[in-house]
Amino acid sequence: MIEYISSVKLNEAGDKLVILDQTLLPRETVYIELDAIEDVWEAIKKLRVRGAPAIGIAAAYGLYLGIKNIKTESFEDFYKIFKEKLDYLASSRPTAVNLFWALKRMDERANKEKHKRIDEIKKALLDEAEKIRGEDEEVCYKIGEHGLSLLKRGMGLLTHCNAGAIATARYGTALSPMYLGQERGYDFKVYADETRPLLQGARLTAWELIQAGIDVTLICDNMASIVMSEKKIDAVLVGCDRVAANGDTANKIGTSGVAILAKEYSIPFYVCAPMSTIDLSTKTGDDIVIEQRNADEVTAFWGQSHAPDGIKVYNPAFDVTKAKYITAIITEKGVVYPPYGENLVKLFE
Amino acid sequence: MIEYISSVKLNEAGDKLVILDQTLLPRETVYIELDAIEDVWEAIKKLRVRGAPAIGIAAAYGLYLGIKNIKTESFEDFYKIFKEKLDYLASSRPTAVNLFWALKRMDERANKEKHKRIDEIKKALLDEAEKIRGEDEEVCYKIGEHGLSLLKRGMGLLTHCNAGAIATARYGTALSPMYLGQERGYDFKVYADETRPLLQGARLTAWELIQAGIDVTLICDNMASIVMSEKKIDAVLVGCDRVAANGDTANKIGTSGVAILAKEYSIPFYVCAPMSTIDLSTKTGDDIVIEQRNADEVTAFWGQSHAPDGIKVYNPAFDVTKAKYITAIITEKGVVYPPYGENLVKLFE
Repeated sequence: MIEYISSVKLNEAGDKLVILDQTLLPRETVYIELDAIEDVWEAIKKLRVRGAPAIGIAAAYGLYLGIKNIKTESFEDFYKIFKEKLDYLASSRPTAVNLFWALKRMDERANKEKHKRIDEIKKALLDEAEKIRGEDEEVCYKIGEHGLSLLKRGMGLLTHCNAGAIATARYGTALSPMYLGQERGYDFKVYADETRPLLQGARLTAWELIQAGIDVTLICDNMASIVMSEKKIDAVLVGCDRVAANGDTANKIGTSGVAILAKEYSIPFYVCAPMSTIDLSTKTGDDIVIEQRNADEVTAFWGQSHAPDGIKVYNPAFDVTKAKYITAIITEKGVVYPPYGENLVKLFE
Repeated sequence: MIEYISSVKLNEAGDKLVILDQTLLPRETVYIELDAIEDVWEAIKKLRVRGAPAIGIAAAYGLYLGIKNIKTESFEDFYKIFKEKLDYLASSRPTAVNLFWALKRMDERANKEKHKRIDEIKKALLDEAEKIRGEDEEVCYKIGEHGLSLLKRGMGLLTHCNAGAIATARYGTALSPMYLGQERGYDFKVYADETRPLLQGARLTAWELIQAGIDVTLICDNMASIVMSEKKIDAVLVGCDRVAANGDTANKIGTSGVAILAKEYSIPFYVCAPMSTIDLSTKTGDDIVIEQRNADEVTAFWGQSHAPDGIKVYNPAFDVTKAKYITAIITEKGVVYPPYGENLVKLFE
């Protein structure tokens, strides 16, 4: 049995958030205990917590910690402070959709329980935070089961970036089939792309798979072609940031290249996508705006530049993988095959 | 007119080798003057000189410096010391084919001139070293002309690793059409893959193109797909280590992935190959053994590791690009198109 890493959880007494500080990985495994909402804000801001689901969970628990000691019996008074705390947490990472989604759920729950006593409302908010965490764990588990159903024992698997346990409540998305396979003796050989520029594959994916005893080999992104050509890879599994209605998928920069290589080498390419990432209002990948990031992510390591001064840099954070390169999209509701335009809609029926 | 960088040349007095120390690039542009053969040995060993043609040129000049002060009138005595010096230089980098090739030329020239006076033999050996340098410059220039004939003004060009001026006598191979285009106002927009793990694209290609005033943008290797999808690239130009008889080409790790992407995006993919790299005795790419390199090239920067301890690493130095992905092979004798099996042989007729 694997000892799963909880990157975000409440301590047993229920008064502190315990966070794995991902900025220190893989050199140090440090769990920090936070009881002040300001510390939760800082942990989200500074990427100590990262991964969309993990950020949502941390925000929900953080909000609970921020309101649990409010002394009042008036809902109006309570709600005023609740909203201040909520807006404060929302300012920690303005581009994180899951952050707002989780805080909105907490807000709706507070309003739903407004006729109850304040101590009951507090309990309900703790319950909501637990639900957000628990539901994410279930989503990840189901993605793992559906993903595993597509894989065979002894397979070589390639992944890009980190769509892992530490980015979610447990299991991860793209890594979930690997964990469930490990529990059941599948003996996968995993290859992790290092994932330039921020090296999430080397720093995070490699680390968490090693913790679980999974056979993992680190490669540079540009080695995906040779490992595929040498028949070391039987399937590619990646996470995603957003899936458009036609199946086009935005994910970490480099994903589209891996998908094209997989198609060329006749290797299945699977996108692991929680239902929350499927956005039918986005028609195609062309409608997804790609965030551009700072040059120094590309030109320097450990604060020291290796590129010539004044070099122009192009540093998109994501790219869009066209639906035609995606063998299947694995959701908690099951595996979706092309034509995605038709079949993704059915998930919501 | 571009001020070309000479990475290896003899000083005007003809008694010192002037080498651009490539290990200090791009932070410092330092030329070192070497008059002792031991220093030339060290410069080759420590990669201060790199690039197959540049190593050959440095070895030829280095050997000349090593023998030019031998005091004897007996060829037998002279040749004994000459061979000792030659064998010594050959030990500097045992995997560099061009090193042996250049030293063999020097040896043949010494033997050809054996009936002459020792001072005449010394002059002949200087002449041979100059020839090796001059011929390389001519090869690179011709590759540039043939390559440029395939390109149009304003094109976006992608290159991988460093097949540049500093790796050769002048111009480089893959970069030669870019330099000649720059001289003639072609206004190319060049994208340089950083080329993990050793970052030759970021450290060397970006640097030398900036020196020549060429518009260059640095990207991570995994961004090649997005820049192609955004129609920023009209042609890919790369160098090569070896071309097999069927056109399969070994080059820096990652090249095969770029070639597959180029084909998928309908972008021409050109290999710039001096005749000396075409090896008809190698039937296909399957016959090329790929060198495996140390894990720390992948796991650390500036001596500091960013990957978990004990991680397995796969670090092949090269990969093989199948002939079917190569639009044309550009040599000093002209542009070769498929079928390569037939057309490469004709170059040698």
